[in-house]
Amino acid sequence: MNRTMTALAALSLAFPAQAKTLPAPMTLEQAADDALTGDKVAWDFVEGITTEVGPRQAGTEAEARGRAWAVQWLKANGFKNVAIEPYMMPTWIPGEPGRAEIVSPFPQRFAVAPLGTSASTGPEGITAEVVMFATVADLQAAPAGSLKGKIAYVSNSMTPTQDGSQYGFAGPTRWVASGIAASKGAVATVIKSVGTDNHRNPHSGGTTFPEGVTPTPAGALSNPDAANLERMFKRAGGKPITMKLVLTPQDLGQTESGNVVGEIVGRNPSLPPVLIACHLDSWWQGTGAIDDGAGCAIVAAAARNVGFAGQPLRTIRVLFAGAEETGLWGSKAYSAAHVNEPFAVGLESDFGADRVWRFDSNFRETNPALHKRIALAVARFGVSGGTDAAGGGADLNVVRDQKGALVDLQQDGTRYFDLHHTPDDTLDKIDPVQLRQNVAVWTQVVGMLAGEATSILTGGPVPTAPPMMQGK
Amino acid sequence: MNRTMTALAALSLAFPAQAKTLPAPMTLEQAADDALTGDKVAWDFVEGITTEVGPRQAGTEAEARGRAWAVQWLKANGFKNVAIEPYMMPTWIPGEPGRAEIVSPFPQRFAVAPLGTSASTGPEGITAEVVMFATVADLQAAPAGSLKGKIAYVSNSMTPTQDGSQYGFAGPTRWVASGIAASKGAVATVIKSVGTDNHRNPHSGGTTFPEGVTPTPAGALSNPDAANLERMFKRAGGKPITMKLVLTPQDLGQTESGNVVGEIVGRNPSLPPVLIACHLDSWWQGTGAIDDGAGCAIVAAAARNVGFAGQPLRTIRVLFAGAEETGLWGSKAYSAAHVNEPFAVGLESDFGADRVWRFDSNFRETNPALHKRIALAVARFGVSGGTDAAGGGADLNVVRDQKGALVDLQQDGTRYFDLHHTPDDTLDKIDPVQLRQNVAVWTQVVGMLAGEATSILTGGPVPTAPPMMQGK
Repeated sequence: MNRTMTALAALSLAFPAQAKTLPAPMTLEQAADDALTGDKVAWDFVEGITTEVGPRQAGTEAEARGRAWAVQWLKANGFKNVAIEPYMMPTWIPGEPGRAEIVSPFPQRFAVAPLGTSASTGPEGITAEVVMFATVADLQAAPAGSLKGKIAYVSNSMTPTQDGSQYGFAGPTRWVASGIAASKGAVATVIKSVGTDNHRNPHSGGTTFPEGVTPTPAGALSNPDAANLERMFKRAGGKPITMKLVLTPQDLGQTESGNVVGEIVGRNPSLPPVLIACHLDSWWQGTGAIDDGAGCAIVAAAARNVGFAGQPLRTIRVLFAGAEETGLWGSKAYSAAHVNEPFAVGLESDFGADRVWRFDSNFRETNPALHKRIALAVARFGVSGGTDAAGGGADLNVVRDQKGALVDLQQDGTRYFDLHHTPDDTLDKIDPVQLRQNVAVWTQVVGMLAGEATSILTGGPVPTAPPMMQGK
Repeated sequence: MNRTMTALAALSLAFPAQAKTLPAPMTLEQAADDALTGDKVAWDFVEGITTEVGPRQAGTEAEARGRAWAVQWLKANGFKNVAIEPYMMPTWIPGEPGRAEIVSPFPQRFAVAPLGTSASTGPEGITAEVVMFATVADLQAAPAGSLKGKIAYVSNSMTPTQDGSQYGFAGPTRWVASGIAASKGAVATVIKSVGTDNHRNPHSGGTTFPEGVTPTPAGALSNPDAANLERMFKRAGGKPITMKLVLTPQDLGQTESGNVVGEIVGRNPSLPPVLIACHLDSWWQGTGAIDDGAGCAIVAAAARNVGFAGQPLRTIRVLFAGAEETGLWGSKAYSAAHVNEPFAVGLESDFGADRVWRFDSNFRETNPALHKRIALAVARFGVSGGTDAAGGGADLNVVRDQKGALVDLQQDGTRYFDLHHTPDDTLDKIDPVQLRQNVAVWTQVVGMLAGEATSILTGGPVPTAPPMMQGK
């Protein structure tokens, strides 16, 4: 209670109470505290979009339904200047549910999902011997041509980490193994899912093929199936393990996608706005609850809560980016269209809905007073001040391209990769209590940033052009 | 340590050391204690059958491969009189993976699995309005003919229970709802999975249609999908929810299944044997690890451990029953063939591989000394003596039909119904430490029962005919 009162006193200097008539004036701090105990807005968003829209694969009609739904929701929740900004993108769809079966020596079926940009096996499938590699490095070390006619399998595992850092360790198995295997003659690649759960739900996600390498079929096995395949190698006594793989994804060529934006308009709209982002698209298997319906729910609820505490100085713009999963097409399109429009700062929520535990910025050294003030203000929610330089989320290309200010509100990712890109990314995985803590922290931080009269990056006068246009 | 020494002393009276040369004589108690810390036999069985065979749907070639594998394993592990006892049974197979999709007002796909004995929708599927019922009782109360042309949905939920007793509460949703709905004109039925998890893995299992009611298509939705459907009803504002359901199971008519038996032959084979059972078949979605590969692993390892401690007085017969899941066909066939052969006692393991926590028998009042002796002997493994009358597992029809002695070693079922009948019934769900505790308890109990010279049911002289043939 003391801590709250102290923080309240500190904040009252920074945020003079807004002129309001009804209800009684509310401080930003009160709005954040109310979010912690009672926010219903974020839940309404993520419950709504997962129930009424469901999966939102980039470039498809399902993503378009997601945009229409989001526009309606933003308008109903008091956002202004709500718009869809369309762009074209190359669209890949997964086709029929994948099938992987061991033909010999131990016939049984495995759960498999195609990876984004995977080629099709055709409905008749591919049957070939499986060659196992423990790591991408081992695969890379295989002699040229040595995988001719084989299916490569990479068994690298992922360990849960609070900061999500094992994605960097395990991710390459998905990101590059199929391209490497194809370059050595493999007819297809299967990987252990890049994920930390033990359910029969493969983790999808994008893979890549280097220039000049023809894409091959590529799929992820669920972790229990991957473990079974590895046991088969031990039990086969050197006999070849033969797999039949059926993956039927399709490239649809260029289709329309789009970003959705909306604003809580500030008292001084000529000041660069605060940009808060998430992505609206999801892979097809789940309903896009934690990735990233929750992120859109959090940023939208925070913006709305800040507005509810009184009109902020700066405009807060929400960016529900499209087509993040399949190549940041929305982020790139948004930067291409808006890079000459200065933004005050960018923040993104795209790591589920579990608790925020650390605040990072990229202005800790250039505007230490603001960094410290924010750190103090979120301490009451259990959020520590970090020393990492914030890099911003995937949909903040525009701010990165401007070399602008960034904030990262680090979330607990311990169970994120249990669910990431799986059929299990559904509403029931969101803990309403932790979701509300996110909204509270975001309300506090976004409100403070939107109240800053001076440059967030430097603490100096607000620049009239993005930093990149000033040669920084 | 004291407790162990006391128990050892007590046991040494009941079980004179067997004459052995190498290694040094081992008591039954030592064999059980060794199993607790180091048993590898049960793991070898369940790892082997899930890896080398996988799912074993009753009546199919996969179940036949399971029998062949089990015969080989039993022989390799020193069992005698290993045999397959075939029988014919009506076989139902699930067909292609099921599909359920909401057509309007909120189009998206749900995960669904057909229920055993479900009719086929045909590949074109059935599209109809969904009518929701909270319980089977509500469905039962619907007026005759009121479901004409509709798909019935029952939303009853299941709570985890240590003793598994909520299966009796939630189970009827699967067992009888589709028959009731069909009798009221429904064209199909979908239910919330009878299960306690929140993964996109529907729980399959059998359903039934009363005489005179034509079977309709019937499926289980995964719990997250069921929750989504229920939210749709709330958000639809009275608009009809329309579902397209595609389930393509097939009845194959009579096919061959079989029971597998093997023995640790006793010193006095004329005494009625101890019968320890499990079932070898599984539903098709998982690999039959907890249901019931683990059960077969536990009973087989226990029998082998008892034999390793010295030839028991009575023969121990393992019964790996076939076709339990689809209607106890193996259990019925075994009783039909063997009901005139007296059994000393029956025990079954068919509730996963989590810890045994209670010992029950049906001779606590008729042979209290033995009941008490067993309870004392398993106390060191954390197993309490219970007062429930043991009913025996599903595959012990022969002993029930004989009105014979039964023992139940109650396992912790808290997480059993997270996995039961799902794709997630895989090896990784088995905790090796708890599996070993099962083997230890079973070794102790089976060894004691096999050492009993007098009637297990009464403590009196061993009868020469089954109790049912003596008018009991």
